[in-house]
Amino acid sequence: MKTTYTLSADTMKDLIEVASGKQGADLAISRARLLNVYTGEFLDDQCISVKNGYIAFVGNNADHTITDHTRRINAKGKTVIPGLIEGHTHLASFCDISRFIPYAVQDGTTTIVTETMEAYPIMGYDGVRELLASFRNQPIKIFGTAPAMVSISPAASGIHPDDLKNLLDRDDILGLGESYWQSVFQTPDRILPAFETTLRAGKVLEGHSAGAGGNKLSAYLATGISSCHEPIDADQALERLRSGLYVMIREGSIRRDLEGIARIRDAGVDTRRLILVTDGVSPEDLMARKGLSFVVQKAIDSGFTPAEAVQMATLNVAEHFSLDAVVGGIAPGRCADMVIIPEPGIITPETVISNGKIIFTNKQMQVSPRRHIFSDVCRHTVNLPRPLTSEDFAVPADPEQKTARVRLMEMVTDLVTREIFLPLPVIHGQIRTDAEKDLLKISAIDRAISPGSLFTGFIKGFGLKDGAIASSQAWDTSDIVVVGACDTDMADAVNHIHKRQGGVVIRAQGKCLAEIPLPVMGLISEIPVPQLVRQIQAVKTALARLGVGFPDPLLTLITLTGAAIPYLRICEQGLVNLKDGKRLGIFPEDS
Amino acid sequence: MKTTYTLSADTMKDLIEVASGKQGADLAISRARLLNVYTGEFLDDQCISVKNGYIAFVGNNADHTITDHTRRINAKGKTVIPGLIEGHTHLASFCDISRFIPYAVQDGTTTIVTETMEAYPIMGYDGVRELLASFRNQPIKIFGTAPAMVSISPAASGIHPDDLKNLLDRDDILGLGESYWQSVFQTPDRILPAFETTLRAGKVLEGHSAGAGGNKLSAYLATGISSCHEPIDADQALERLRSGLYVMIREGSIRRDLEGIARIRDAGVDTRRLILVTDGVSPEDLMARKGLSFVVQKAIDSGFTPAEAVQMATLNVAEHFSLDAVVGGIAPGRCADMVIIPEPGIITPETVISNGKIIFTNKQMQVSPRRHIFSDVCRHTVNLPRPLTSEDFAVPADPEQKTARVRLMEMVTDLVTREIFLPLPVIHGQIRTDAEKDLLKISAIDRAISPGSLFTGFIKGFGLKDGAIASSQAWDTSDIVVVGACDTDMADAVNHIHKRQGGVVIRAQGKCLAEIPLPVMGLISEIPVPQLVRQIQAVKTALARLGVGFPDPLLTLITLTGAAIPYLRICEQGLVNLKDGKRLGIFPEDS
Repeated sequence: MKTTYTLSADTMKDLIEVASGKQGADLAISRARLLNVYTGEFLDDQCISVKNGYIAFVGNNADHTITDHTRRINAKGKTVIPGLIEGHTHLASFCDISRFIPYAVQDGTTTIVTETMEAYPIMGYDGVRELLASFRNQPIKIFGTAPAMVSISPAASGIHPDDLKNLLDRDDILGLGESYWQSVFQTPDRILPAFETTLRAGKVLEGHSAGAGGNKLSAYLATGISSCHEPIDADQALERLRSGLYVMIREGSIRRDLEGIARIRDAGVDTRRLILVTDGVSPEDLMARKGLSFVVQKAIDSGFTPAEAVQMATLNVAEHFSLDAVVGGIAPGRCADMVIIPEPGIITPETVISNGKIIFTNKQMQVSPRRHIFSDVCRHTVNLPRPLTSEDFAVPADPEQKTARVRLMEMVTDLVTREIFLPLPVIHGQIRTDAEKDLLKISAIDRAISPGSLFTGFIKGFGLKDGAIASSQAWDTSDIVVVGACDTDMADAVNHIHKRQGGVVIRAQGKCLAEIPLPVMGLISEIPVPQLVRQIQAVKTALARLGVGFPDPLLTLITLTGAAIPYLRICEQGLVNLKDGKRLGIFPEDS
Repeated sequence: MKTTYTLSADTMKDLIEVASGKQGADLAISRARLLNVYTGEFLDDQCISVKNGYIAFVGNNADHTITDHTRRINAKGKTVIPGLIEGHTHLASFCDISRFIPYAVQDGTTTIVTETMEAYPIMGYDGVRELLASFRNQPIKIFGTAPAMVSISPAASGIHPDDLKNLLDRDDILGLGESYWQSVFQTPDRILPAFETTLRAGKVLEGHSAGAGGNKLSAYLATGISSCHEPIDADQALERLRSGLYVMIREGSIRRDLEGIARIRDAGVDTRRLILVTDGVSPEDLMARKGLSFVVQKAIDSGFTPAEAVQMATLNVAEHFSLDAVVGGIAPGRCADMVIIPEPGIITPETVISNGKIIFTNKQMQVSPRRHIFSDVCRHTVNLPRPLTSEDFAVPADPEQKTARVRLMEMVTDLVTREIFLPLPVIHGQIRTDAEKDLLKISAIDRAISPGSLFTGFIKGFGLKDGAIASSQAWDTSDIVVVGACDTDMADAVNHIHKRQGGVVIRAQGKCLAEIPLPVMGLISEIPVPQLVRQIQAVKTALARLGVGFPDPLLTLITLTGAAIPYLRICEQGLVNLKDGKRLGIFPEDS
């Protein structure tokens, strides 16, 4: 895979000269215990010499590479591992990249591959471009995958072929992002050509085969998909490994599957295609230091050897993305991305080196991430033709009837929903909810593609006793999603987001109880992580007071528009049961 | 890596339908023990269903994929492994591809990656193009690497940047072929830009680091080289693995290193970057069945587990070339390339399936390789401005002196030479050789780039007592190489090759004793392998009678112009000591 980091002839020449002792190294680490991820060995007394950001020499004695101008690190008693690689995450979510990077760096992460799907429904190609621009010229490497745009909203579905081609032409796009398996079967004519385009660009297809197995898994993988981060236990992981997939073990804020999958060690199989990923770390988990080094540590604590665990967050990831000529190991010609840890089994980064520069040491960042100035367009992404009123959330029914039997989303877990049918009272020709019985309204309002398009349905089991919560971050769509016990609060919450041009808002009794401004694309905050966490916690506290008991109620809310988590979901055009992907109305006959 | 075999959207759709039971498979293997190279497991009772040349389904029960039109193979009691992949060989040598393929197929080889360097000095880009054309539409997949053209002849050195770009644009070119390490240091300004071009095309650099270690190896690998097929023992192999290289263990007609390297198992290291290659199988070894299945078997017999050994000739090779989405394992979406063997440790192909077709079974080829009709240009590649005479091989010296001290190539082994200096008699102003003392003449005559350019030097230890042997195949050059005890026989041998437009010829006492016509580019015979072997054996018998005692005297001869084997070599412009790459004349002062 060609990247910005591909060696130039001039750099090659410099590296040859350093390794041959004809030119001094910029940086030399000496006397380290080194994890060689290619062989899986810890080798003692190793020296590593660096020039122009690349490794020029690795061996027992690097004296010939050292001059007075060489910065030296004596790593005696310490262990050096390659910079960690995050293989699957979502960086366009809450945290600005410049706020996020220090946490990643302290984790020893020097390369990240992220989805970009959040930006596309909001701003199309320009949104992804702007996001990628914010990732450039940072202290660490950040690559993206093009958005596959599997969405329950027809408006947000699919990436335009030209946009895909343009993105695949970029050096910082490594493949096509996760394409949920059901949608591949439901809309092959849209998705498979994008797969073909991606494969012909020599790039990978990221998979998402949650719950699939047997014939369905075979059918899905026969399309050329090469990874999945969705297995939740060792059996699912093993079935996917056997199918030739890179299995990404997810241990992050959305799910924690590592402990369950770690039993795969008992099978004694080749681990080269196991990868550790977070799939996203929430601002709170960032502050709680539950990033990638935590995951690698947990893998070790769960029974993987230190070498295996680090391979799963370095070489294996690099090989999956064909980046192994550039990153993923400590060898001549690779980018000088290294982490000094106390000893093999203790993944506590003490010094982090990225592109040959010390970016973290003595518990201090040594560089500042670049603050990207997002364009004005990025700051005006909540488009509604007019302020909403409570009438916009009215759901009419036959005024002659006292009740109407309606289709509801019922929360089965904090993330999974199912389709149920219940009679709701009809008063003055409108279907009424009942917060006491945990029957609420849920609406999705398009804010970008067909601004103002709105659909209102019903939800059971969300727990809100009063008011409304709305968010301009709503998975896989360009929607604002709002759940409410009161139509006026729902309207006010959406209007508040409109006014602020993005954010999460809780309103009740005519007042704003808490909010998280998300001024960039309506997705991203720009404030420091501790402040952001305080805002998030205020939202959670307010929600708890209003009766919502989910562990992460914000995640629960914003996934209700998602196309990946079963079963009944909502978008601005209606409800969708992911089992068949068909759009549904609120009445049983609307199917 | 994009190839001709990259999945199309239409094929994806068919595969989904087969795996889902909506369309019948073309071929189904049932009840096999299957080697899953991704996990390293042998799994019992597996079924594999194939459509349009690709694997649609793998699992315990494939009944849903089978219709009356499905060809079925009951593999109960048998083992299925992926089609073998030859990762480094030289197919433009002696054997026509259509003659070669049946041997490869019986070996279970379904994918080959070959060097193309032999064609380039002779015919330039068109030669490589024609060679690649001969590889197309064959029963198995054949990829090439672009010629790096490391040569001791300045005329044959380097590939034109435009030619390299054109080749790298091709789907059947996977990288840049072997670039001998000394030359990289000696002519970095020519070679490193080609390296950069290759890496920027997202393709690999094949290495050749024979004998390099420590600083030199680091320096060489810092250029982005990613493989080496030259280690000869476990220590060299381990050093290269640790350096992030794919280590190709060579077991072929040129060298047999497997037994020595197999001790690397004792180190207990990760074997994912070990690869088994032949680096070329001579026609005689083809007939003796010493191809790739023999090598895999030998790896098992040398202590590798059957799973490791097969991985080393399938998945590991595919990963090195970023071909693992296409070949290298038995999983949905991969090309249906499979080999049925009796049991895990017995690599005796009984049935070979390539692109979903049974191409070998019941000890019979089921398809005919395509006979490529090489263009007329390929058949007229021996260009000499005029017939040579014995005078052309005269080496003048000061007629006043009785002896001249000259530089000689001395054979140290059958392949390695060294530079020595000896006094040779001067008679009538010409330096004389002495076959009795095993002092002979050796000449290199350019037949393509600067036709007729000729250089004559001296060689000791070749063993020829009379006559001459000449060959239009001469490594890394466009030369005819000739060794002789008699100037007239030397001239006649070269003229004979000129007349025949390619071949190997032995002449003595004014007669042709044996010959191997090589009409295609002067490199390739078109006759069946058994006939070709008889010609080769006749040459060897004739050479033995003339006193040449090398195990493979033909190989000894044609490598004398090579740039890879130490130390003193010859080309049409002089002698070269590979230690420094400097051109030398025959007199000590010519340096």
